[in-house]
Amino acid sequence: MSNTSINDNEVDIVIAAINSDLEPFMNEWRPVFSQFHLIIVKDPDMNGELHIPEGFNVDVFTKSDIDRVVGSSTSILFSGYSCRYFGYLVSRKKYIISIDDDCIPARDTNGDLVDVVAQHIANLQAPATPFFFNTLYDPYRKGADFVRGYPFSLRSGVTCALSCGLWLNLADYDAPTQALKPGQRNSRYVDAVMTVPVRSLMPVSGINIAFNREVVGPALFPALRLAGEGKLRWETVEDIWSGMCVKVICDHLGLGVKSGIPYVWRRERGDAIESLKKEWEGVKLMEEVVPFFQSVRLPQTAVTAEDCVVDMAKSVKEQLGKVDPMFARAADAMGDWVKLWKSVGSSSPGV
Amino acid sequence: MSNTSINDNEVDIVIAAINSDLEPFMNEWRPVFSQFHLIIVKDPDMNGELHIPEGFNVDVFTKSDIDRVVGSSTSILFSGYSCRYFGYLVSRKKYIISIDDDCIPARDTNGDLVDVVAQHIANLQAPATPFFFNTLYDPYRKGADFVRGYPFSLRSGVTCALSCGLWLNLADYDAPTQALKPGQRNSRYVDAVMTVPVRSLMPVSGINIAFNREVVGPALFPALRLAGEGKLRWETVEDIWSGMCVKVICDHLGLGVKSGIPYVWRRERGDAIESLKKEWEGVKLMEEVVPFFQSVRLPQTAVTAEDCVVDMAKSVKEQLGKVDPMFARAADAMGDWVKLWKSVGSSSPGV
Repeated sequence: MSNTSINDNEVDIVIAAINSDLEPFMNEWRPVFSQFHLIIVKDPDMNGELHIPEGFNVDVFTKSDIDRVVGSSTSILFSGYSCRYFGYLVSRKKYIISIDDDCIPARDTNGDLVDVVAQHIANLQAPATPFFFNTLYDPYRKGADFVRGYPFSLRSGVTCALSCGLWLNLADYDAPTQALKPGQRNSRYVDAVMTVPVRSLMPVSGINIAFNREVVGPALFPALRLAGEGKLRWETVEDIWSGMCVKVICDHLGLGVKSGIPYVWRRERGDAIESLKKEWEGVKLMEEVVPFFQSVRLPQTAVTAEDCVVDMAKSVKEQLGKVDPMFARAADAMGDWVKLWKSVGSSSPGV
Repeated sequence: MSNTSINDNEVDIVIAAINSDLEPFMNEWRPVFSQFHLIIVKDPDMNGELHIPEGFNVDVFTKSDIDRVVGSSTSILFSGYSCRYFGYLVSRKKYIISIDDDCIPARDTNGDLVDVVAQHIANLQAPATPFFFNTLYDPYRKGADFVRGYPFSLRSGVTCALSCGLWLNLADYDAPTQALKPGQRNSRYVDAVMTVPVRSLMPVSGINIAFNREVVGPALFPALRLAGEGKLRWETVEDIWSGMCVKVICDHLGLGVKSGIPYVWRRERGDAIESLKKEWEGVKLMEEVVPFFQSVRLPQTAVTAEDCVVDMAKSVKEQLGKVDPMFARAADAMGDWVKLWKSVGSSSPGV
């Protein structure tokens, strides 16, 4: 990586605890995480005691914290994978990194441990280039540059707001794909990161992600909840929905989104065939969702992420609300999220 | 690679001979090229005898062939790197692959020789996915797939018309970049190919390229010629210009463009500092060219690549012609190219 200077005080690592025993997970990540502050949010649906090993700088939040801070007068649910968003809300740091608790550090093609924090922060600190595609990937990486024909006026780039990492071993496929190819594992380490071009939509996965909280924090929220949402990744679409919103918002605000390294190693979990019944609901919704996000335009008056989410929620309600009540509920949750973000953000640090 | 079945009779390899001694080049490529038909076009500016080793199925075209087929009543110049386009014109094959004569085969991360033909043809035969970004790169590659959230209605993809390969060792930088970083060499082998999203422009390099001639052949032409154009890659922009045209045309026709593997190993050539005087002209032109191509729209009546080039030429003349006479000449060359393509294409095979 290029020379990334990380200020430990600028980073929060947010972990959604879906399983009570975090010991194996935390011990695997110890060399990467131990110097940073961790926010662990316990799935409010989960009973049982959390097991967290010694030696970490960690704040744990549970259902009682969520109830105290958020109250019951909101349409936002923090259960299951969505509990991480409570961590986003109470963080006061510039950068947030969030990794699912079924992932461990990957190794690169040299066999070296991938430092997911350093690579995400490098992605966020180097500019993004959404307005013209560079065929040699990230032009700011060591050993790379802009290729012949790349306009000089676009070479300074824009602020990168979101860094989407990838997965080795069990990739983030949907239940149908996983059920059709039960033996499929991702073993290709692609040593690249790139800016996803402006107006190009993508499926943002919440498994391995980092973002500049100060710039786009309000645009990462748990808004779209499937009726049959479960405790497996392929039974959720909350990150996909939020990812579409944040990409459109970044495009509108002139910010960049990157995809590629760092990788995590994702362990097996769940029975894809069992999940198929639930998953089709999410799959069908995408056919309505994508044309909406491809055509939605935000007004010039929307100049912050908060503004954009409020305007986006209005469009969701008007255009998708009539298609399925799930979308109307998502719109309400987006509005409530911005209110929460403002009220919690103005309270004292650490909540 | 996935199981690519290549019909030898569907492939022409086109080589622009800028140097008279092609022996080292051809011998390096023998394991990859020898089963295919080669079209070698000798730079009409070059004197000296071409040296081509035995054992290839090759047709050589020289200045006298160009004069006979094209005549003098055209604004198109086939000198220097542009001589390859004469090969595109006289080919009758479905696929064309073109590699600069200062490149030799690369090796992948396992040390295996890269089969540039097999990889380019695999890129062209597998669908492209320009309407939604797949974070795991080409979903049709062995071991890859569409990730969770990718709309099922977009998973069948569209025809891939153009495959843009990359370069190890000496990358395709412009003269200023090369002059500023004289020691910079590209050593990162990124094992990926992806579709460049719709409406995202890119700097197409002619160094290592393949395309479906039947679909987009008319859109690859030598139209924009710099006043000080030279015999070094960084002194040319003809491929960058044509690449912008072909990308806009693919977007309009619902075709795909891929970028990534295969790599070639590019050898040193030329003195970047010497070229700087010439290159700035091309660099400055890009600032006019990019906004034009980002905003140009083709009419619904344009349903073939020929139609699109004719309409594009009109827009170039109207909108860029007044900026610089070079653009007006490019527009004329584009019109002449379509006429040539139609007349030469309707003549007997092999011309």
